[in-house]
Amino acid sequence: MKKNTERNMSVVKNNTLKIEPVPFKNVKITKGFWFEKFKLVKEEVLPYQWKTLNDEVPGAEPSHAIENFKIAAGESDSKFQGRVFQDSDVAKWLEAVSYCLAVEPDSELEKLADEVIALIGRAQQEDGYLNTYYTVAQPDKRWTDLRIGHELYCAGHMIEAGVAYYLATGKRNLLDIVIKFADYIDSVFGPEEGKKRGYPGHQEIELALVKLYQVTGNERYLNLSKFFIDERGKQPHYFDLEAEARGAKPRKRRHDYSQSHVPIREQEVAIGHAVRAMYFYSGAADVARLTGDQELANVCRRLWENVTNRQMYITGSIGSTVTGEAFSFDYDLPNDVAYAETCAAVGVILWAHRMLKLEVNSKYADVMERVLYNGMLSGMSLDGKRYFYINPLEVWPEANKKRPSKKFVSPVRQQWFTTACCPPNMARLIASLNNYIYSQTDGSTSEDSVYVHLYIDSKAEVEFENQKITINQETNYPWEDTVVFTIDADKAVDFTLNLRMPGWCRNPQVIVNDEEVITQGNAQGYFEIKRTWQPGDKVYLSLPMVIELIEANPQVRVNAGKVAIQRGPLVYCLEEVDNGPVLQDIVLPKEPELVAEFDPDLLGGVTVIKGKAYRSVSFDENNVLYKPIDYRKKEVDIVAIPYFSWVNRTPGEMIVWVRIEK
Amino acid sequence: MKKNTERNMSVVKNNTLKIEPVPFKNVKITKGFWFEKFKLVKEEVLPYQWKTLNDEVPGAEPSHAIENFKIAAGESDSKFQGRVFQDSDVAKWLEAVSYCLAVEPDSELEKLADEVIALIGRAQQEDGYLNTYYTVAQPDKRWTDLRIGHELYCAGHMIEAGVAYYLATGKRNLLDIVIKFADYIDSVFGPEEGKKRGYPGHQEIELALVKLYQVTGNERYLNLSKFFIDERGKQPHYFDLEAEARGAKPRKRRHDYSQSHVPIREQEVAIGHAVRAMYFYSGAADVARLTGDQELANVCRRLWENVTNRQMYITGSIGSTVTGEAFSFDYDLPNDVAYAETCAAVGVILWAHRMLKLEVNSKYADVMERVLYNGMLSGMSLDGKRYFYINPLEVWPEANKKRPSKKFVSPVRQQWFTTACCPPNMARLIASLNNYIYSQTDGSTSEDSVYVHLYIDSKAEVEFENQKITINQETNYPWEDTVVFTIDADKAVDFTLNLRMPGWCRNPQVIVNDEEVITQGNAQGYFEIKRTWQPGDKVYLSLPMVIELIEANPQVRVNAGKVAIQRGPLVYCLEEVDNGPVLQDIVLPKEPELVAEFDPDLLGGVTVIKGKAYRSVSFDENNVLYKPIDYRKKEVDIVAIPYFSWVNRTPGEMIVWVRIEK
Repeated sequence: MKKNTERNMSVVKNNTLKIEPVPFKNVKITKGFWFEKFKLVKEEVLPYQWKTLNDEVPGAEPSHAIENFKIAAGESDSKFQGRVFQDSDVAKWLEAVSYCLAVEPDSELEKLADEVIALIGRAQQEDGYLNTYYTVAQPDKRWTDLRIGHELYCAGHMIEAGVAYYLATGKRNLLDIVIKFADYIDSVFGPEEGKKRGYPGHQEIELALVKLYQVTGNERYLNLSKFFIDERGKQPHYFDLEAEARGAKPRKRRHDYSQSHVPIREQEVAIGHAVRAMYFYSGAADVARLTGDQELANVCRRLWENVTNRQMYITGSIGSTVTGEAFSFDYDLPNDVAYAETCAAVGVILWAHRMLKLEVNSKYADVMERVLYNGMLSGMSLDGKRYFYINPLEVWPEANKKRPSKKFVSPVRQQWFTTACCPPNMARLIASLNNYIYSQTDGSTSEDSVYVHLYIDSKAEVEFENQKITINQETNYPWEDTVVFTIDADKAVDFTLNLRMPGWCRNPQVIVNDEEVITQGNAQGYFEIKRTWQPGDKVYLSLPMVIELIEANPQVRVNAGKVAIQRGPLVYCLEEVDNGPVLQDIVLPKEPELVAEFDPDLLGGVTVIKGKAYRSVSFDENNVLYKPIDYRKKEVDIVAIPYFSWVNRTPGEMIVWVRIEK
Repeated sequence: MKKNTERNMSVVKNNTLKIEPVPFKNVKITKGFWFEKFKLVKEEVLPYQWKTLNDEVPGAEPSHAIENFKIAAGESDSKFQGRVFQDSDVAKWLEAVSYCLAVEPDSELEKLADEVIALIGRAQQEDGYLNTYYTVAQPDKRWTDLRIGHELYCAGHMIEAGVAYYLATGKRNLLDIVIKFADYIDSVFGPEEGKKRGYPGHQEIELALVKLYQVTGNERYLNLSKFFIDERGKQPHYFDLEAEARGAKPRKRRHDYSQSHVPIREQEVAIGHAVRAMYFYSGAADVARLTGDQELANVCRRLWENVTNRQMYITGSIGSTVTGEAFSFDYDLPNDVAYAETCAAVGVILWAHRMLKLEVNSKYADVMERVLYNGMLSGMSLDGKRYFYINPLEVWPEANKKRPSKKFVSPVRQQWFTTACCPPNMARLIASLNNYIYSQTDGSTSEDSVYVHLYIDSKAEVEFENQKITINQETNYPWEDTVVFTIDADKAVDFTLNLRMPGWCRNPQVIVNDEEVITQGNAQGYFEIKRTWQPGDKVYLSLPMVIELIEANPQVRVNAGKVAIQRGPLVYCLEEVDNGPVLQDIVLPKEPELVAEFDPDLLGGVTVIKGKAYRSVSFDENNVLYKPIDYRKKEVDIVAIPYFSWVNRTPGEMIVWVRIEK
């Protein structure tokens, strides 16, 4: 065995390396942690959502989404109901269905999807326009209120669905519909004389058009995406102009809610509605990469640094104010009135994935992993039947009930929502997770490289120009330290296997075939293993999961004197059901002895963290509100569980940030 | 010298002792801390308010209050402007003027007051009704919307002004006006057949009618007050019935905003609008005392325990939510989004003073003192020119600017307010502070006793049936430990001098004439000194002002791991101007060495508290948001100033609750 540090630095030195996800049809997640989540999505979330789309859930808020398409198709004479963006629920459902079909054919589900697609086709207008709200309820008002009309937003989701369904099934039915729509949109919007210089009030179409460009090769879609991104925020402001054109009363708006206060290239910090921001930055990262626009790439990097080093919860969630479901400002990250919308967490993953395509760096995958296992996954109950829209990091249920300003935070997951964006968004993300695990170099480099960003039990078939490799990844991550890769191929293969070194791990180590030990990664944060691989070669990745106490930058005033408990990629929390009420009274001793223990019977099987801490003695004794300090304390046992699994038992208080003697 | 503990317990054993404030005309505050505040009120606040009432302050929100009276008197034909309760600003001004005139005659001010009173008289209707809003703007709507109309509230303030002006000047001009009005109100409201069974939406008249009863001896006013108190909250609900009678859409209301959700005798906790609650409980305590209603007295005691042991800030402020300017629930006392309205702080003093009349107990005077020196006094700048409506215990000005849910909190005092209730309310309280210092037994007991509740440099002339005593109180409180009383009289006098033992003081001590030392008080928390006093006898009260670290009940989750610094009656705070930004990063060592130091040049002369504390080292070094805990720390000097004096220099961050190693 010998150290391999020199070689480690040899290949990926610059940030301009082009990598692409290994096509999702070529990656299967077949067992383990995320397979169980995938099954929940397929077996619980999608059937349930289908029922809601058809108004078949008794007592649930009516969706009317399928009915709206029937009206638009001339097959029903009821009236439009729902939000202006109701169509997008159908699109996200179709997109998630597509990913499920890609994993495993299901003729019944596919037949259902085909029927819905046919209905969508019939609802499409002659000129390609497709939006049930405007077609049915405001036929003369098409494109007159981009700021809140959501036409381009819905178009984006339908395009994503069309592309996904095509890639999953090979069928062009929905793809042709969205191409016709996109062509029409391209005829309406653009810099050319006579076209509207508008852009969506809610970004989404930007990244969707990039996907359409990638499957069709038609550069007009990429150009239109770039137009939407660069036109945004120019003066005179389009949203003011269109309001004026409608005869609406002029209002002084700052437009930061929709990130259109200034053009993106002038934006220094993330601001406004968090989901809009994530979709926007995702589209921008795509366009920067595909057009080689270094200035735009730098904007993406700058905004990434701002979001992740100034405005992100430790769970990877973003959006710290309910007002506008938005970013507030640097270091303002209250735990109890966090917004931390599930959709925004999905958005972080979308953006991180695209930053990773823009330039390989483990910091993007670190964030992707953080939000995946924590701030996004908390959005769904363990049984897949209840959802959080808002993901607080601290709850005191009595306050959520009795303090008006905290009523927006629910201390328990809900069955569904009037604005039901989050559950289907999580569904499509989880169903497409196989797309986020691996990347490979495209034809632009002479060397074949595979990147492993996420440690998920899976099998990937990676095709290069001259060779085809199968990578088997076996792991009990996130509970256990070890990941084993088996390389399979018809013959010996030359390629570089790049394994992400997680930012949370202090002493990661790789052993290749029991002989070669690597402990240092490259500048991008990956173990880079370049060799001629024999079929059956094995790589053992060890990621020691030490229990870490994480502190926040002191600028995050609410977390002063507190730590978050972290093990591997998981952030932990304390719940009242394990630790009693008034969790803020608990204080960890300096350098506490904490132990991790896997409990197969708890919460579907989780590793809990146990240890000793203190509580104040005066808590028992004293009924007054204020008194001179009493330094006495008593030892108590504490139990922390993974944050994502909170409130799957008796509801109660919860904290992520725990006081520590320091 | 001998200990006097036995005798200490001899006189005041039961809680039914009747005591009354020493009439305010007999008490003079002539120098020292509060005299300076009084001067500010007389020289700054009242003249400024007079200008605002007459719309003579350029740029300030128009008041129109005097103009409204002119319209109602038929002397102007402009239109009513302002809030429905605009009249009360004039009433509170007149009440504050009265207290100033009682202290020191001022013919010019009195002439001005007489002119305003004459105008009010001309605005009064033939039948006694007096309210410019309804008279001018809604002449047919009198008494149709008690819930929000504020007619009885304005009546209450005018009655208080009438009584105060009479007591201060001996003139009946305003008293006769308010008697006529009260008689009319009594003809409209009451339990008798044909009268309205209504009560005010905003309590205030209840305590005012008690004052009117006390100067006139007319029991109808006391009965009407009792009726308003007991009728409140009965079903069917009057506010619902009156809404129905107006043809308003029926709304399901809980009515807890106005404490009318259930009758007062069924109320277990303080709820709803904090100022309304304070005025209500004040009236209830008065009525309980004057009617000997033990059940009502117990309700007052229960609500007192709830407010002071569950819902009060350490500054004595109350009302922890902006929504409804209200109480939220037990132990919910956020520092940064505190409401803690200045008017509610004034209300606490009014209530505490009445509880003290209901039963002598130093706990009432302790709270009265706490709020006086902290939560109320913070409402005014040191120059008397700027005011807080809301008194937060923690500010991060950037958050007040950028986080929508914190914008209601101003991190600096304002010049004036559209709803300008607080400045005149503070003004009348400070101007009448001589009323709160001393009590004396009334004729109902055989022994003559004087109570000293507050330590304020002053001179009181106390008249009993058979003797007249002058008490000179000299002190540099709240800065210094010692209070010296000199007893003066024409001859030797027999009476008991009761000196409050402040709850904040661990080792108070009394020395009488350098000979007799007393260190224990009675069950009510007073040093009880019964003797035959010779003219010139001196009592030296020593109240060692140790710097105390106060912790909150752990149920107050936001204060976990933190202490408030207190010295004497003063709560301290840290300001950015002295300690740099990010004050939450500061942690006091266990058992810190803190020293008090009077600085005559700072903030008009205050005792500051200085010491060593720690800050995290990583604050300087690290630019990331989260990282493994770093136990290193660095020593820093800290300076704490009295809370009431905050933001009289460069605005910035401020905290009352400071982290401590514990």
